[in-house]
Amino acid sequence: MSNTTVWLIFSLICGILSLGIGVYLFVWVKNQDDGNDRTREVAGWIHSGARAYLKKLYAALIIVSVIMAAVLSAVYTFDGSGRGLATALCYLIGAVCSAIAGYLGMEVAVRANVRSAVAANHSMPSAFNIAFRGGAVMGFAVVGVATIGMSAIYMVTKDSQMVLAFSLGASSLALLAKAGGGIYTKTADIAADLVGKVEVGIPEDDPRNPAVVADNVGDNVGDVAGMGADIFDSYVASAVAAMLLGATMQEIHYTILPLLLCALGILASIIGVYLVQVKEDGKPGKALNMGTIITCAAFAVLMIIAILIIPEIANRYIWAILIGTSIGIVIGQTTEFFTSDEFKPVQLTAEYSASGAAITIISGISYGLISIVPSILGIVISMLVSFYVCGGATDFTLGIYGVGISAVGMLAISGMIVSADAYGPIVDNARGIAEMSGMDQEVIDRADVLDSAGNTAKAITKGFSIAAAALTVLALFAAFVSEINLALVPYGKTFTIEDISLVNPLILAGLFLGAMCPPLFSALTMLSVTQNAFKMIEEIRAQFREHPEILEGTMTPDYNRPISLAAEGALKSLILPAVIAIVFPLAVGFIMGPKGLTAFLGGAIITGVIFALFMSNSGGLWDNAKKYVEAGNFGGKGSEAHKAAVIGDTVGDPFKDTAGPSLNTLITVMSLVASTFAPVIAVYHLFQ
Amino acid sequence: MSNTTVWLIFSLICGILSLGIGVYLFVWVKNQDDGNDRTREVAGWIHSGARAYLKKLYAALIIVSVIMAAVLSAVYTFDGSGRGLATALCYLIGAVCSAIAGYLGMEVAVRANVRSAVAANHSMPSAFNIAFRGGAVMGFAVVGVATIGMSAIYMVTKDSQMVLAFSLGASSLALLAKAGGGIYTKTADIAADLVGKVEVGIPEDDPRNPAVVADNVGDNVGDVAGMGADIFDSYVASAVAAMLLGATMQEIHYTILPLLLCALGILASIIGVYLVQVKEDGKPGKALNMGTIITCAAFAVLMIIAILIIPEIANRYIWAILIGTSIGIVIGQTTEFFTSDEFKPVQLTAEYSASGAAITIISGISYGLISIVPSILGIVISMLVSFYVCGGATDFTLGIYGVGISAVGMLAISGMIVSADAYGPIVDNARGIAEMSGMDQEVIDRADVLDSAGNTAKAITKGFSIAAAALTVLALFAAFVSEINLALVPYGKTFTIEDISLVNPLILAGLFLGAMCPPLFSALTMLSVTQNAFKMIEEIRAQFREHPEILEGTMTPDYNRPISLAAEGALKSLILPAVIAIVFPLAVGFIMGPKGLTAFLGGAIITGVIFALFMSNSGGLWDNAKKYVEAGNFGGKGSEAHKAAVIGDTVGDPFKDTAGPSLNTLITVMSLVASTFAPVIAVYHLFQ
Repeated sequence: MSNTTVWLIFSLICGILSLGIGVYLFVWVKNQDDGNDRTREVAGWIHSGARAYLKKLYAALIIVSVIMAAVLSAVYTFDGSGRGLATALCYLIGAVCSAIAGYLGMEVAVRANVRSAVAANHSMPSAFNIAFRGGAVMGFAVVGVATIGMSAIYMVTKDSQMVLAFSLGASSLALLAKAGGGIYTKTADIAADLVGKVEVGIPEDDPRNPAVVADNVGDNVGDVAGMGADIFDSYVASAVAAMLLGATMQEIHYTILPLLLCALGILASIIGVYLVQVKEDGKPGKALNMGTIITCAAFAVLMIIAILIIPEIANRYIWAILIGTSIGIVIGQTTEFFTSDEFKPVQLTAEYSASGAAITIISGISYGLISIVPSILGIVISMLVSFYVCGGATDFTLGIYGVGISAVGMLAISGMIVSADAYGPIVDNARGIAEMSGMDQEVIDRADVLDSAGNTAKAITKGFSIAAAALTVLALFAAFVSEINLALVPYGKTFTIEDISLVNPLILAGLFLGAMCPPLFSALTMLSVTQNAFKMIEEIRAQFREHPEILEGTMTPDYNRPISLAAEGALKSLILPAVIAIVFPLAVGFIMGPKGLTAFLGGAIITGVIFALFMSNSGGLWDNAKKYVEAGNFGGKGSEAHKAAVIGDTVGDPFKDTAGPSLNTLITVMSLVASTFAPVIAVYHLFQ
Repeated sequence: MSNTTVWLIFSLICGILSLGIGVYLFVWVKNQDDGNDRTREVAGWIHSGARAYLKKLYAALIIVSVIMAAVLSAVYTFDGSGRGLATALCYLIGAVCSAIAGYLGMEVAVRANVRSAVAANHSMPSAFNIAFRGGAVMGFAVVGVATIGMSAIYMVTKDSQMVLAFSLGASSLALLAKAGGGIYTKTADIAADLVGKVEVGIPEDDPRNPAVVADNVGDNVGDVAGMGADIFDSYVASAVAAMLLGATMQEIHYTILPLLLCALGILASIIGVYLVQVKEDGKPGKALNMGTIITCAAFAVLMIIAILIIPEIANRYIWAILIGTSIGIVIGQTTEFFTSDEFKPVQLTAEYSASGAAITIISGISYGLISIVPSILGIVISMLVSFYVCGGATDFTLGIYGVGISAVGMLAISGMIVSADAYGPIVDNARGIAEMSGMDQEVIDRADVLDSAGNTAKAITKGFSIAAAALTVLALFAAFVSEINLALVPYGKTFTIEDISLVNPLILAGLFLGAMCPPLFSALTMLSVTQNAFKMIEEIRAQFREHPEILEGTMTPDYNRPISLAAEGALKSLILPAVIAIVFPLAVGFIMGPKGLTAFLGGAIITGVIFALFMSNSGGLWDNAKKYVEAGNFGGKGSEAHKAAVIGDTVGDPFKDTAGPSLNTLITVMSLVASTFAPVIAVYHLFQ
C-alpha cells in the first residue's frame, strides 16, 4: 500500500470519526430533559417551522442541482472528455453531503434549544453544555461529511477535478441556504420587532406576537443551517483549491496534503471541544475562546509533526500553514475591537446616538468601513508571506501553492469554529423558549448570559470566516488560471500571465464588472428583506386588527402564516442573486473569454471581501451600541439615544446577517463555477 | 510657423476668450441691483464668512504646496534629470491657477446670490439669469484658466511632464477644497438642522439660528469652490493623461489634440450658455438640460470638422471622442432614474419610510448600490469601444490613447457643466437670503422653483463628473505605466505587461491595499462631519442657553463662532485624508515597487468609482424621498414617514456632499502622484 493511500485512508477514518462523534452528541442531546408540555409545545412550533422551511429549501436545491448536473453532464460529454456523468454525479454528491450536514445540525439545534432552556432552570453549566454540544454536532457533522466526501471521491477517481465538482455541489446549497436563510431570518426579525416592540409595545419573544415563532425559526435557518452550509462550502473549496494547485506540481503528496490537514484539524477540534468547560460563575464567552485557542495550538503541533516526518513535503510549508491559522484568529480579534462595547467605536456610536439616528447611522457606517483595514492587512500579509516563503517569484507554482495551503491551514480548525458559532442561535432560541413558556426571571437572566457569550463568539467567527473565504478564493483564483492552462495544452496554446495584464482594457473591464457584482448582490438581498418584511408587517397588523383577543392573551395567534410568508419570500428572492452567482460568470466567460473572466473574478473577490467585512462589522457594532445604551448608558432604555440605537440595530440586521456574510458564498460560488467550466471556456468564447 | 504651433496658439486664444467672458459676466452680475440695507447685510455675512474660510484654505494650500514643491524640486534635482526647478514651478502654477478660478467663482457666487434674490421680487427669468450667469463665471473661469495654463506651459517647455506637474498642483488644491468644503458644508448643515429644526423647531434659514450663516457659507465653499476645483482637476488631468499617452506615439499631433479639444469645448460651451433661456412660466431645469445637450451637439460638430480637416489625426478617433461625450450624458440621465421622485426608487423609499427610519436607510443604501450598475456598464462600454475602435489588442498604444481621448471628449464640455452646477448653490443661497431678510412668500416660492431645478442639474452633473473622473483615471493609469517604461529606458530594462499579471500575489496585494483606500477615505471624512457637527451643536445650544433673547428674535446670534468652528474643524480633518492621497501611493511605490503601485492604483480606481457612485446616488435619493413626502405623499410633513425621511436625508448629506464626490479627487490625486514620481519609483524601490 503506497504512502499516499495511507494518508487517504487516514483522512477518511478521521472523517468517519468526526461524523461518529457528531451522531453520538446528537443522541446525548436528544436524551436530555425537554421539560413540560408547554416547553415541548413551544419548541414544537419552532421545530415544525424549521422543517417546513428546510423542505422548501431542499426542493429549491433539487431544481438548481438537477439543472446544473444536466448542464455539467452535457458540457463534459459534448467536449469529448468523457467525464460528463462522473462530473454530474460528484456534483450531486457534494450537494447531498452538504444537505446532510445541514439537516443534522438543524435537527439537533431545534432540540438543544428547549433542553438548554430547561437545564437553565437548574444551573448554567448544564445549560451551556447542552447548547455547546448541540453546536458541536453541527461542527463535527460539517467537517466529517466534507472530509469523507472529498477523501472518498479522490480515492475512487484520483482526479481533483472530480473533487472540484463535489465542491461546486456543496456551494450550490450554500448559496441557497446562506442567502435564503439570511433573508428569512431578518424578514421575521424586523417585522416582529417593528410591529411587536415599536407599534404595540410588547416585549421581545412575547407569545402574543404572530411572528415570534417565525423569528425563532429564522435563527435556526439563518444562523445554523445557513452558517453550516457556508463553512462547509469554504472548507471544501479551500481544500479543493490547494488540491488543484498541488496537481500542477510534480510530487503527488502535495495534492493530498490538504486532506491530511483536514484530518489533523478534526483531531485538534476534538481536543478543543472536549476541553471547553464552564463553571457556575464562569464566563461562557471565555470558555469558547479558550476552546478555539487550544484547537489552534493542537492543530499546529500535529501539523508540524506530520510535515516533519513526511520527507516529500518541504518544511517551509509549515510557515504558510502557521500564518494561515494564526492570521484567522488575529483577524477575528481585531473584529472585536470594532464590535465590542469595551472599545471606542461602539461607545462613541452609542454616545452620538443622543443626537439622533442619522448620526448613529453615519458613525456606524464609518467605523464599519474603517474596520476593513486590519483584516485586509492581515489577508495581504498572510498571502505575501506564504507566497514568498514557499517559492516567491522565482518559483511561482510553489509560491502559489503556499497561498492555497495557508487557506487550508486557516479552515482546518472549522470543526471548533462551527461548534462555537452554532452555539449562538441555540442559546438565542433557548432564551426565546424560556420567555415564551413563561419561565422565571432568574432562568431568563441565565439564558441572557449564555446568549451574550454567543454574540461575542459569533462576531469573532464571522471575521474568521470572511478572512478564510478571502484566502480561499485567492487560491481558487490561481487554481482557475491553472485550469485554463491545463485545458489549452492539447491545443498547443498557453494562457500566459501577460494575457492578464492590468493595463489591458479588457482586463480592466472585467475587473469593473466583477467588482460591481457583490454590491449588487447585497443590495438585492437587502431589498428582499425590506419587501418581505413589509408584507409580513401587513400580515401581523391584520391579525391584531381582526382578532383583538390575541393582544389580550386569550387567543393564540396564527404562527403559520408569517412562517410561510417568510419561507416563500426568501426562496423567491433567491432567483436574481443565484443568477448573479452562476449565470454572470458564465456569460462573462463565454463572451469575454478566459482573460475577461479572470479579471471578473479578481474584481468580485476584492469588493466581495470589502463589502462582507464592512457590512458584518457595521451590523455588529450597531447591535452592541444598542445593548450598551440598554445597559444604562446615555439615558438607557426609552431615551432618545435608545430610539436612535434601535434604528441603527435594525439597519444592521440585514447588513450583518443577510447581505454581508452571503458575500463569502457568492465569491466562492463564482470562483468554483469559473473553475469547473474553465476547460470549456478556455476553448469556446466570443472575444479574445 | 508649424501646424502644431497654430493649434497651441488657437487653444491659448480660446482659453483667454473664455476667461474674458467670465470676467465680463462677473462685472455684469456685480452691476445688478443688490437690494436694500437688510439684504446687503445678510449677504455681507455670507460673503465675509466665505472669504474667511477661503483665506484659511489658501493658507493650508500654501503649506501643502511648498512642501510638495520642495520635494519635487529635490527629487528631480537629485535624480540628475535637471528638471527640479521647472517641475516645482509648474506644480506651483497649477495650484495658483486652480486657486484663481476658485476665487473668481466664489466671489461671484456670493454676489449673485443676493442679486438673484432681489431680482426674484420682480420676475423669475431675471432671477434665473443672474444666478445662471453667476454660475457661468465659474464655468468659464475654470476651463479658461486651465486651458491657458496647459497651453502656455506646453508652448514654453514642449514637455508633457511639465503639464503633469501643473495638473498635480491643481489636484492638490482640489483635494483640500473638495474634501474640506464637503466637511465644512455638512458640519454646518447637519448642526443647523438638528438644533434649529428638530430641537427648537424654527424653520430652515431662520436668522435666529446661530449656524444659519455658516450653513449658507457652506453651500458656497462646498458646492462652488469645492466643485470648481474638482472639475478643474479632472479637466486638466484628462487632458494630461491623453497628452502623456500621445507623447508615446510617433506623431506629435496626438500630444496636442487634447488641447485642441479643450478649445473646441470652450467654443461649444459659449454657444450652449448663450442659448440657455427661461420664460416666466418656463421650467428652469429643462433650460439647463437643453443647454447641456446643445453644447454636446455643438462640440460634436466642431470636433468632427476639426479631425476631418487635420490629416495627421486618424478619423477613427472621432468615434472614441463621440462615445466619451455621449456616455457622460447617458450616465447623468440614468442617475436621474435613481434620484428623481418621478421613478420607483425614490417613491418606494418614501413609501417604506412609513415603517420607520431603518427601512428608509436600508432601502436607500440598496438602491444606491444598484445604481452603480448602469454607470459602470457605461464606463466599461465606453472604455472597450474606444480601445477596440482605435487600435485594440493588435495596436495597443493607439487603443489606449483612444481611451484617454474619450475621457477628454467627455470633459471638454466642462464649461457648460460647471455653469449649470454652480447655478445650484447660488439659488440655494438666494432662497436663504430671501428667507433671512424677510421677503414675501411669493418671492420665496419663486426661489424654491429655481432651487429645485438646481438640484436636478446637480444630480446629473454629479453622475457625469464621476464617470468622467473614472475614464480619466483609467487613462492616467495607462499613462503611469508608460511613464515607468520611459524611465527604465536608460537602464536597459522594460516594464512589460507580464510584470503586472493579475495572478501575481504582489499584484493582488496591491489591488487589495488600493481598494481599501477609498472606503477608508470616505469613512474618515464622514467621521469628521459627525465629530465637527457634534461640537457645533454644543455651541448652538450654548448660545440659546446663555442668551434666550436670541430665540425671541430680539438679539442677533453670534454667527462667527459657528463659522470659525466649521472652518477650523474642516481644515484640521484634512490631515489624514491628505496622507492617504499623497503618502500612501508613495509608500506603496517605494516599498512594493512599480508593479505593486500599478495594482494599488487599479484597486483604488475600482472601489473609488463604486463608492463615489453609491454614496452620491443614495444621498440624492434620500434627499428627494424627503421632498416627495414633504410634497404631501404618505402623510406629508410632520408624519412618521416624514420623520424617517428626514433621518434618511441627514445620513445622505455627508454621503452625497462630503464622502462620495471627494473620492473623484482622491483617485485623481493618487494617480497623478504616482505618475509624477514614476521616474524615481521606477529606479528606487525596496521589493521587486
